[in-house]
Amino acid sequence: MNSGEFAFISWLRDRTPGGPRVLLGPGDDTAVLAPASRPTLATVDMLMDGTDFILSEVGGRAAGRKAMNVNLSDIAAMAGVPTAAVVSVSLPKAGGRDLAEQLHHGLRDAADLFGVPIVGGDTNTWNHPLAISVTMLGEATERGPVPRSGAKPGDWLLVTGALGGSLLGKHLAFTPRIREALEIHEAAPIRAMIDISDGLAADLQHILDESRCGARLTAGAIPIAPAAEERSRTSGKSPLRHALEDGEDFELILAVDPIDGPRLLTKFPYLVKIGECVEAGLWLDDAPLAPAGWVHAMEAKA
Amino acid sequence: MNSGEFAFISWLRDRTPGGPRVLLGPGDDTAVLAPASRPTLATVDMLMDGTDFILSEVGGRAAGRKAMNVNLSDIAAMAGVPTAAVVSVSLPKAGGRDLAEQLHHGLRDAADLFGVPIVGGDTNTWNHPLAISVTMLGEATERGPVPRSGAKPGDWLLVTGALGGSLLGKHLAFTPRIREALEIHEAAPIRAMIDISDGLAADLQHILDESRCGARLTAGAIPIAPAAEERSRTSGKSPLRHALEDGEDFELILAVDPIDGPRLLTKFPYLVKIGECVEAGLWLDDAPLAPAGWVHAMEAKA
Repeated sequence: MNSGEFAFISWLRDRTPGGPRVLLGPGDDTAVLAPASRPTLATVDMLMDGTDFILSEVGGRAAGRKAMNVNLSDIAAMAGVPTAAVVSVSLPKAGGRDLAEQLHHGLRDAADLFGVPIVGGDTNTWNHPLAISVTMLGEATERGPVPRSGAKPGDWLLVTGALGGSLLGKHLAFTPRIREALEIHEAAPIRAMIDISDGLAADLQHILDESRCGARLTAGAIPIAPAAEERSRTSGKSPLRHALEDGEDFELILAVDPIDGPRLLTKFPYLVKIGECVEAGLWLDDAPLAPAGWVHAMEAKA
Repeated sequence: MNSGEFAFISWLRDRTPGGPRVLLGPGDDTAVLAPASRPTLATVDMLMDGTDFILSEVGGRAAGRKAMNVNLSDIAAMAGVPTAAVVSVSLPKAGGRDLAEQLHHGLRDAADLFGVPIVGGDTNTWNHPLAISVTMLGEATERGPVPRSGAKPGDWLLVTGALGGSLLGKHLAFTPRIREALEIHEAAPIRAMIDISDGLAADLQHILDESRCGARLTAGAIPIAPAAEERSRTSGKSPLRHALEDGEDFELILAVDPIDGPRLLTKFPYLVKIGECVEAGLWLDDAPLAPAGWVHAMEAKA
């Protein structure tokens, strides 16, 4: 820790609103949060310049926003309420202080939308690109957290929005589906859920692996984002394939009891039914989408 | 996330013991921990190759151990019980998988000593040096967490061990003073505490700033580590100055009521009284140790 870091911590402290849960914020050895009566959720994601964003193109504010949002999205995927975040960064030495402030603005843009305080952090500099790690804490609701493992054959599979082409901009400017997850889970218990970071097919496969079941997707039902159409014009891949394969949409895939399905679709117009769980396998209409080989299957169809 | 990361997560899951608090460990969108009846502590530290260790010299296991231990030390500084950790890393692409396993062994060496489960993580690779971030959660005890802000004029200032020269090895091989902090805090309420990461003088100054008081250290009472003597032989600085100035000792500085002082010194022989709190200023015997200029004051004395 050097004097530059102290100045930044002091700057941070002045800008850190408290909250009913925050007994002690940044500036001590640890933050202190009030006890919670429900289970605590904890998740961490590290983002790096050159991998998760091109800092020189998007700027620190967009990078900070994404670093916070990907973690909020993980809390959403459990149908949890985010409660507090801590942030650690390695800043490139040149321009590090200005970058730190831009990152902080972006982190707060995202966190403020859900009233999440940043209760602690660790700021470092080095002669290498930016790495930023956000740890998000949250709380389960009364219905409990939603794991990946609860889907059953017959369950309806729903998504919260259109998919594909997120590299054109959405990956930097999405809104984590915190509110949607909470209102759906309140209306009917969600049995299994994941956020789409690696792509619809890949992330659905995680639900299937953990739930030990399969799924059949209806190709014509998968909501395709305009950005997927746009990407398709130059990529040589179909818009559907972009919707199935592109990562970082940060929409939610959820499995619900078929008895609850119709009511949820009526109540929450953003929900789209994309298929159903089956005993085994991953299918697009009648064609297998093998976990590893599904890309090739799609190419064979194209 | 790529297939290499999945393999590593799977490897991790097989090696992650549960714990009474862990309702859901690595492999879902978040970890889930049982609710706690006491306040939650949260802290994060990011370590980087070339700054906090030279990876090519010390290896991944020592790096992982240090990354976990510096965070455990922050929990110790609150007199808290560590409960769970999450870890994020950016690994250099060459040899990343082997390094990840070495890091994990080191993280677990340190965490296992205190029964702390690693409940989540995020593994990335890039073409730059290793950055590793550990977030540690903990719980306060019945007596409450110990902030930096509770010292009062007249309080005794104690340290938990000898200081100085940690660069010769201790910074990679220290034991966080978790147990010591807990047993002292149980015997008598600790009023203010910090762990020594930046050096005795610098870290004591944090207690003084937050507590709005001063301190007078007794030069002859400060416990000097053999490593400080060793460093002194080539550094041109006195062993005392190494003890005051060197960082990363990860011993604790604590302020206690003078009524409790003698009993604590008798009960815990590793404790050393180094001075007392006063109304204002930071003094070494009768000479001022100014917050920014203390190095120069020492040089003038040398």
